[in-house]
Amino acid sequence: MAKKADIIVGVDMGGTSMKALVVDGKNRILAIEKMPTNRAKKSRGLIADIAALVAKAVRKSAAKRSQFCAVSIGAPGAIDPKTGTVRKAPNLGWLNVPLGRELTKLVRIRVVVNNDVNAGVVGEHAFGAGERVDDMTGIFVGTGIGGGIISRGRLFEGSSGAAGEVGHTVLVADGPLCACGHHGCAEALASRTAMERDVRAAIKKGRKTAIPAIMKQRHKDRMTSSVIHAALKAKDPLMQEVMARAQYYLGILVANVVNLLDPERVVIGGGLAERMGEGFVQPIRRHAYEYFLRQADTKRVKIVPGSLGDNAGALGAVVLARQRLKH
Amino acid sequence: MAKKADIIVGVDMGGTSMKALVVDGKNRILAIEKMPTNRAKKSRGLIADIAALVAKAVRKSAAKRSQFCAVSIGAPGAIDPKTGTVRKAPNLGWLNVPLGRELTKLVRIRVVVNNDVNAGVVGEHAFGAGERVDDMTGIFVGTGIGGGIISRGRLFEGSSGAAGEVGHTVLVADGPLCACGHHGCAEALASRTAMERDVRAAIKKGRKTAIPAIMKQRHKDRMTSSVIHAALKAKDPLMQEVMARAQYYLGILVANVVNLLDPERVVIGGGLAERMGEGFVQPIRRHAYEYFLRQADTKRVKIVPGSLGDNAGALGAVVLARQRLKH
Repeated sequence: MAKKADIIVGVDMGGTSMKALVVDGKNRILAIEKMPTNRAKKSRGLIADIAALVAKAVRKSAAKRSQFCAVSIGAPGAIDPKTGTVRKAPNLGWLNVPLGRELTKLVRIRVVVNNDVNAGVVGEHAFGAGERVDDMTGIFVGTGIGGGIISRGRLFEGSSGAAGEVGHTVLVADGPLCACGHHGCAEALASRTAMERDVRAAIKKGRKTAIPAIMKQRHKDRMTSSVIHAALKAKDPLMQEVMARAQYYLGILVANVVNLLDPERVVIGGGLAERMGEGFVQPIRRHAYEYFLRQADTKRVKIVPGSLGDNAGALGAVVLARQRLKH
Repeated sequence: MAKKADIIVGVDMGGTSMKALVVDGKNRILAIEKMPTNRAKKSRGLIADIAALVAKAVRKSAAKRSQFCAVSIGAPGAIDPKTGTVRKAPNLGWLNVPLGRELTKLVRIRVVVNNDVNAGVVGEHAFGAGERVDDMTGIFVGTGIGGGIISRGRLFEGSSGAAGEVGHTVLVADGPLCACGHHGCAEALASRTAMERDVRAAIKKGRKTAIPAIMKQRHKDRMTSSVIHAALKAKDPLMQEVMARAQYYLGILVANVVNLLDPERVVIGGGLAERMGEGFVQPIRRHAYEYFLRQADTKRVKIVPGSLGDNAGALGAVVLARQRLKH
């Protein structure tokens, strides 16, 4: 008797690397493959890379081709989940790329596309820090700030599949310029990019700090999560100050979300949360509590770091594909 | 044959007046009654007033007692819809008042309690400016700023029935003090109370304005919607300036909501929207568009004034009761 075709390849397309997980119908991970994201390539080349990554993961899993039912991608930027088109992904320089359609031609199986952070939040909800919770919000802090809302156990998609952009809610009207072109968004105040901007500005003003040395030592030209973590471990005062400010704004962001959406849990994901865990989340929680409208929520609403690390996106993509295929 | 018991009395409990609508199973309004809210009374006295108002409306409707199935209240503040308790209503000075239980004893029929603004948003969604739309957000601007979220055609309640508090999301971290005790909430920047605070501060600094004369002429000791409207019609420069600032912040608030929740419509309700209509909403819309993350939303997302006036809350309360009674 032929086995049921219920294996899905979940792919997380990050700005620096891409990860594919082969997951069976019982949500067991059969294989993992990873490759760097070559952003110098055009969309066609990058889509070919994804197809190659998927093929490699499929081979590694040793499952038969007939057992697979879909490839599901979490892609950065604004996605149209209905058509599988990436409307706009500034990180990749993509504009209206029909990722779903193009990738289907190469992998010859159904392709589902969702926003990468939405997928990450769904992953944390299904298997990670949001398990057994019906209403949660995820906030992922990295180069940018993204998010996703789970309501009654399902992803809250909004009217065009674009809901969850916590990073582009304004926390300081007329505040610093954001990558989106507006001012004072959470992303412009508390992302890694915002922290790096503040560190560079302080250095320019003559502030002493160990951060450039740490970056050099690690051969990094950007202030990555590992650089930030190392600078904090070295008790660099500038890094402590910049991080504390970001955590203050993230606390207000969490409170805004709790006051507006009334979730029972907020999961803080992304590279910094993964690396620093409670050290990253604890000050955010403290500030959030100060801004809660409903005092009882300080006892009721849990604010926790994500627990799946960089598997969250690919696992969530698998969950979203299963929901889609049911309909 | 006895008629089906499907008539509901919807009550909107406002800070200044209370309104009861008797509504039949086909959503026809059979009777309307109104009375002032006597805030000097304790909760017991005010609940007796509601019972009297309901009785008066029921008599006026000429319907038989046996045709009624519920009284449904929209009450200000934090409500526990499951128990019908008003957890906290600063406007009324109420703390943990079992409104549902106490009123049931007096009216001897099932009583449903929800937040007044949530009810107003549900009313606009069912019968007003949000008709035939699945995903919308309502923002009601008055003494405070409240709101409600409609997702997939239903009120988004959150994990404890408290979702929708747009007025207590921070737009200016470290901004002006809010009635809730925090700083920089939308309510502290753009409610009538915030506008009045700014007007009084400017007068104290020696700024000339016709506003005090307009208040005196209308025997008002607060800057009501009618005072604001009259001052704007008289082209009072201070009023224009203060209103323009409030509309700027409301525009950012609308954009935050659109970027986060991806609704297809935003309904602006409350006294100012009712009195000024498009004159209130147009500048808000313009600022919101500037802050939209998704450019296409300027064509897709409609931002409109509410259309039910002060019937919205009572009508929405009726809708919420019908949904509750089904379960």
